[in-house]
Amino acid sequence: MHKTAAYAATSATAPLAPWSLERRDPRAGEVLIDIRYCGICHSDLHTVRGEWGPVEYPLVPGHEIVGHVAAVGEGVDRYKVGDAVGVGCFVDSCRSCAQCAAGEEQYCEKGMVGTYASVDPSTGEATQGGYSTRVTVHQDYVLRIPDGMPLDRAAPLLCAGITTFSPLRQFGLKAGNELGVVGLGGLGHMAVKLGVALGARVTVLSTSERKREDALKLGAHAFEVAGSDKTAARRLAKRFDMILDTASAAHDYNLYLGMLKIDGTMVLLGIPEPTPVSASSLVMGRRRLAGSLIGGIRETQEMLDFCAANGVASDIELIDAAGINDAYERMLRGDVRYRFVIDAATFGA
Amino acid sequence: MHKTAAYAATSATAPLAPWSLERRDPRAGEVLIDIRYCGICHSDLHTVRGEWGPVEYPLVPGHEIVGHVAAVGEGVDRYKVGDAVGVGCFVDSCRSCAQCAAGEEQYCEKGMVGTYASVDPSTGEATQGGYSTRVTVHQDYVLRIPDGMPLDRAAPLLCAGITTFSPLRQFGLKAGNELGVVGLGGLGHMAVKLGVALGARVTVLSTSERKREDALKLGAHAFEVAGSDKTAARRLAKRFDMILDTASAAHDYNLYLGMLKIDGTMVLLGIPEPTPVSASSLVMGRRRLAGSLIGGIRETQEMLDFCAANGVASDIELIDAAGINDAYERMLRGDVRYRFVIDAATFGA
Repeated sequence: MHKTAAYAATSATAPLAPWSLERRDPRAGEVLIDIRYCGICHSDLHTVRGEWGPVEYPLVPGHEIVGHVAAVGEGVDRYKVGDAVGVGCFVDSCRSCAQCAAGEEQYCEKGMVGTYASVDPSTGEATQGGYSTRVTVHQDYVLRIPDGMPLDRAAPLLCAGITTFSPLRQFGLKAGNELGVVGLGGLGHMAVKLGVALGARVTVLSTSERKREDALKLGAHAFEVAGSDKTAARRLAKRFDMILDTASAAHDYNLYLGMLKIDGTMVLLGIPEPTPVSASSLVMGRRRLAGSLIGGIRETQEMLDFCAANGVASDIELIDAAGINDAYERMLRGDVRYRFVIDAATFGA
Repeated sequence: MHKTAAYAATSATAPLAPWSLERRDPRAGEVLIDIRYCGICHSDLHTVRGEWGPVEYPLVPGHEIVGHVAAVGEGVDRYKVGDAVGVGCFVDSCRSCAQCAAGEEQYCEKGMVGTYASVDPSTGEATQGGYSTRVTVHQDYVLRIPDGMPLDRAAPLLCAGITTFSPLRQFGLKAGNELGVVGLGGLGHMAVKLGVALGARVTVLSTSERKREDALKLGAHAFEVAGSDKTAARRLAKRFDMILDTASAAHDYNLYLGMLKIDGTMVLLGIPEPTPVSASSLVMGRRRLAGSLIGGIRETQEMLDFCAANGVASDIELIDAAGINDAYERMLRGDVRYRFVIDAATFGA
């Protein structure tokens, strides 16, 4: 067992605070990882505050984990001590259903085992996440960080990166397509970078002028203020082959659906409140409103390799563990460019 | 010019009544059709009552038209006098946009020219529909009724048939797939027949037991009462590859979205009031909520040929023109098995 420094929530309302837990020695097939960096995802905040249902405390969030292999269990053949590796949103799944067989573990029939706030079926204990210095994970759920990729900027790829990459691939974005991106936060900024790298013409759709300069700096080809503006709806009518909608607060889907070409697809990546959809927005253009959840292990590795080959990484703000609670507040205000990443060296010994 | 008996609405509230209009001699490329039968579509009622926006009166509805070619204009090479032909929901389009070029005239950039309640761009006059004894239409917007197909039972294929056939094809229904059909009216009964003919396992999803026997007689493999029943939602979770939703009144999409497999698609064919969609229904299974509008001329011909080859036609109740208003009331009560078709011989001389 390995004593492991961490930051944990002890209730839905308490700030996260130093804590410590034990990580097991790697069993057959498992690797022990010394964590270097962990990204902060909006879902960490939702989960620790109980906004997505009741959870057990203490709870260590974090599912954008990057580090180095510190030890390997029997039969580990993919990784060796010292390898740069990552762990994303899940650490296990049933391995036998159709989705697992297809490498789509995120849709496992029995439910993926989340990196935190899930029950580890092999121990019956709650999983604890990456706001910590070590984690033990089966090699089948570990990703290889490509050589030369900066580890801190790689961390958010494990959630924000794959969450935006997967739908671009699954819903068939092609080079030359017009891609709209709703919202320019952690997911949105990755959608811009990945869309550009995939050869699309990318337009950021925002509710105010505030992020124009940033959007263009990130590589977007265009920026449009499109909140509830009827003239924007007309100007952008039937413009996009695909829209990735990264907004997590309730907003009018119909406004954006009307901006899709015939046969266009808008993909929801956040989970806003149930929102009225006008059937005519869909019927009159054979359009699709879809959703997508992270991505499977195989596709996550593809995404990492694609990012390495194309020089794509997350824009981050590196923080100390002591800054987590402040980072949560800033995230709630949308004040982050574009992902907070915790330096795991600051969790303590 | 050809004096033509018809039934027309003279206001949003008046019952339809006998009327007469003039149909033009066929110009170059056009055919004059002696109408034999015309189906009654729910949208006829919505339109004449002004429920889909203001319209001009008198208005002759009807876009499920079947008859025989009575005369042909110069250069008509596809049809000759005596041919059995059909006309569906539109009689013209711009012929030059990407959609028209792709044979998807229903999504024409400039808007298709509806068979009724549109403006004929070549004359500037309102188009008048198939509740009449004659119509003149360009051959490019005329369908061939395959030999041996009963003309009265073919009429509803021109709208109800193509409206259900097109999404089954466009969204990739495969033999062996599980198909759910929400609502068993004019569209729903065609969805069942076409789904079965395409090799799917078809389940009718209804809000009561009332239509069980009918559904099975139409060929459905299963019937499920699924209104707001939570046990049905659990029992049918992740059952279907595709759901065709033919209901025109507001209902809970999320209930049915949860019955889709991963990557499943639910296609809206009606236009209910805007209805709340829960993003998690889509995100947690990479599901699609889509819409589809009738079909193009080429696909409509494919549908007719497919129906002829597979012995598929609409179940109808043949009525006289004098029965149109009563049929509207029965249609509003859902009391129709499964499409009213008017015998055009009863419009008068």
